[in-house]
Amino acid sequence: MVSVTVWNEYVQERTDEEVAAVYPDGIHAVLAEALESRGHDVRVATFDEPDHGLTDAVLDDTDALVWWGHKAHQAVEDAVVERVCEHVYDGMGFVPLHSAHFSKAFKRLMGTPCSLRYRESGERERVWVVDPGHPIADGLDESFVVPETEMYGEPFAVPEPDRLVFASWFEGGEVFRSGCCYRRGSGRIFYFRPGHETYPVYEVPVVREVLDNAVRWAAAGVDEAVPTVNRAVDPVE
Amino acid sequence: MVSVTVWNEYVQERTDEEVAAVYPDGIHAVLAEALESRGHDVRVATFDEPDHGLTDAVLDDTDALVWWGHKAHQAVEDAVVERVCEHVYDGMGFVPLHSAHFSKAFKRLMGTPCSLRYRESGERERVWVVDPGHPIADGLDESFVVPETEMYGEPFAVPEPDRLVFASWFEGGEVFRSGCCYRRGSGRIFYFRPGHETYPVYEVPVVREVLDNAVRWAAAGVDEAVPTVNRAVDPVE
Amino acid sequence: MVSVTVWNEYVQERTDEEVAAVYPDGIHAVLAEALESRGHDVRVATFDEPDHGLTDAVLDDTDALVWWGHKAHQAVEDAVVERVCEHVYDGMGFVPLHSAHFSKAFKRLMGTPCSLRYRESGERERVWVVDPGHPIADGLDESFVVPETEMYGEPFAVPEPDRLVFASWFEGGEVFRSGCCYRRGSGRIFYFRPGHETYPVYEVPVVREVLDNAVRWAAAGVDEAVPTVNRAVDPVE
Amino acid sequence: MVSVTVWNEYVQERTDEEVAAVYPDGIHAVLAEALESRGHDVRVATFDEPDHGLTDAVLDDTDALVWWGHKAHQAVEDAVVERVCEHVYDGMGFVPLHSAHFSKAFKRLMGTPCSLRYRESGERERVWVVDPGHPIADGLDESFVVPETEMYGEPFAVPEPDRLVFASWFEGGEVFRSGCCYRRGSGRIFYFRPGHETYPVYEVPVVREVLDNAVRWAAAGVDEAVPTVNRAVDPVE
Repeated sequence: MVSVTVWNEYVQERTDEEVAAVYPDGIHAVLAEALESRGHDVRVATFDEPDHGLTDAVLDDTDALVWWGHKAHQAVEDAVVERVCEHVYDGMGFVPLHSAHFSKAFKRLMGTPCSLRYRESGERERVWVVDPGHPIADGLDESFVVPETEMYGEPFAVPEPDRLVFASWFEGGEVFRSGCCYRRGSGRIFYFRPGHETYPVYEVPVVREVLDNAVRWAAAGVDEAVPTVNRAVDPVE
Repeated sequence: MVSVTVWNEYVQERTDEEVAAVYPDGIHAVLAEALESRGHDVRVATFDEPDHGLTDAVLDDTDALVWWGHKAHQAVEDAVVERVCEHVYDGMGFVPLHSAHFSKAFKRLMGTPCSLRYRESGERERVWVVDPGHPIADGLDESFVVPETEMYGEPFAVPEPDRLVFASWFEGGEVFRSGCCYRRGSGRIFYFRPGHETYPVYEVPVVREVLDNAVRWAAAGVDEAVPTVNRAVDPVE
Repeated sequence: MVSVTVWNEYVQERTDEEVAAVYPDGIHAVLAEALESRGHDVRVATFDEPDHGLTDAVLDDTDALVWWGHKAHQAVEDAVVERVCEHVYDGMGFVPLHSAHFSKAFKRLMGTPCSLRYRESGERERVWVVDPGHPIADGLDESFVVPETEMYGEPFAVPEPDRLVFASWFEGGEVFRSGCCYRRGSGRIFYFRPGHETYPVYEVPVVREVLDNAVRWAAAGVDEAVPTVNRAVDPVE
Repeated sequence: MVSVTVWNEYVQERTDEEVAAVYPDGIHAVLAEALESRGHDVRVATFDEPDHGLTDAVLDDTDALVWWGHKAHQAVEDAVVERVCEHVYDGMGFVPLHSAHFSKAFKRLMGTPCSLRYRESGERERVWVVDPGHPIADGLDESFVVPETEMYGEPFAVPEPDRLVFASWFEGGEVFRSGCCYRRGSGRIFYFRPGHETYPVYEVPVVREVLDNAVRWAAAGVDEAVPTVNRAVDPVE
């Protein structure tokens, strides 16, 4: 059982009919339900709340932070981004989903542009397990299908992942590194590509299984405060 | 200009009509011609020669060793494999192609099974540049096509590459990490997936361009003998 | 609670008086006692047993294999080395200690010479935690001291570790990467430098704490058979 | 011959007598002279200039940017930091020195706190070559000494380096990863620890040799614009 916070900017579900039809209560509601049904302790937080719902108290109590954002990336306050990063350094797991590859927090943690190629055309994605010995692939078949999705293609401008768990094949001809693990300070980061605001990707059972594995893995970082300042010390010898 | 040795087991071209039809003078002849036409100094060596043609004198004079093998992997002498590895440790480049993923030298250098999934069905492969800033991708478009080839699919049981340069999409639904860089000792290793004994893959111009880039990159390792034995030393302070 | 097998060549304790004085029942006895006292289920195996005590049945039942070897590296049968590596690929943890940097299994898993510089002079070693967020560093102070030990110095000819947990300072002026994590297939490998046959390093409480953390971490690999052969497959699309 | 820009905040040399005594014309003058004497084409830029001297025109013409900063890190304009990072992504080399571990640009490129332990006590540092096959170690002995310096100690809160070239031993008992290579986008980054504003470290011949190797290596990144925005594309198959 992991203490999860699901963050959602919660913009398009309230402004775009097509999105509202798929996620009437917000993507966070579906993500929260998916994780609660697997026994996790889930809280949600959204952009409109004070501090975007991500106070120190909330983050202190979070083992894994799942992040959905798309239209409001730039509007997220820098102070909150900084706070998220510092909690990652201290061992909090971070699981940015799909378009969150362009969130401020992910970009800051990667140190790279995090750009990619994309196409919204409802094509089929086949996700391959590249690293069957990784806990996030535990229990999965060799590959699984997302029937209709937005395509993301390489080059994906991220640092070489510590471990690449998934790679995707798309009907339209592209490939993508769809499940990427990183460590920053004591915290574990898992970027997971599948998901979209107008396709019900988070209703696909195997995708929910991955989310479950992902928060378990991300939450297992050691709680250890990595200092963010330099420290003067005396000789030891 | 790189001093290249192209090694070929040279078995199927002499025993299998279908292979002989595509590579009448051996795959090494086509590889050598491709590299010579780009200005490299190329020598060939084959299984049947004494020491498989890979004496210390030959390897001392080799900046990049290109390796083709398929049917005779197990018959390659361990002493020669050892010699190849030691030259890699000392800075020689090593470029195993396609089925050489299962050569003794590559497996020994990786420390993993190097197994994969495959299908011989003449399907289309699209190779994507994942790392456009890598010298081996220099001058290439975002992707290129091998019209007919054998499929290789993940999981490919290798260590996480230092840099992943290419990833392939296959008509039949798979993906593969098709261009993987490693370092062992002072030597640079580039595994390149495209190629096959019954499809004329090494006649495809862009594939030849990659081979050219690959031997240049692999040859650029620093010549520095990494000792293979332990050394007793005196205190320095 | 981890199912640990402690392997020892058990040579010098029976042939060298100085070693026998420090480890009268063999280094394996001290290592086993250290791990049993922390609640692990420990079995020992030694060189003289059939199959060196490492049958498939034993390895199937082993979550983490701790390895001590020094004088008999070359005499270890290749078939047993192969068996150990295959169990690592399938998720068994492997913890080579000190001079086991030159064991056949570690060298085969690394793919590099694994050579280093050394000096037997009873000098002080200070081991620094480089990666405080790693589980193997859990509960440790910033550094700890081994009062008298053999020195190991860089360059240590291994691949770049996935994570470097410890680095050592030596009285005589050298440094060394003393705690190195790798993955091969599904298995976790942790090389730990401290230890020696004539200094009672494995009696030092903090060293035993590291051994405890190390077997817990190494044992946590996912049990997943990575095939060692290639597999022919049908198209999925 | 590399086109180098040496950047210096140039603060302490004009405000602190002790610093001015060691570097009367600024640290940049000594660094520039060291690199010019080895045949490089060197320009200097300082904090007080418009855009801190780092316009697009200057950076476009820079193959390797050497960075010295200490007291003014926070005052460096974010727009200039962004510009530096984007040039790195496009292939410009970046060589932060010593206290530049805490510069905005290095921290942003790493995505981690980059904090460390330190002590100003004029102690001896011995720098060991950990990776003798790396071009930055080319021509160096196994170790070299900086007679008097400020100590930096682990943990150094950076991502695992792509390659660790140097590690330092300090008289007072610490160790440090002193030469760390990274890639971000198409650009090469080399963090080099030695240096200090009150010890004439950049007069030490072997340190100047490392600087020479470092700018050559960092400048050798491929010029390739990694897009910083996402791109919509059509299907290829």
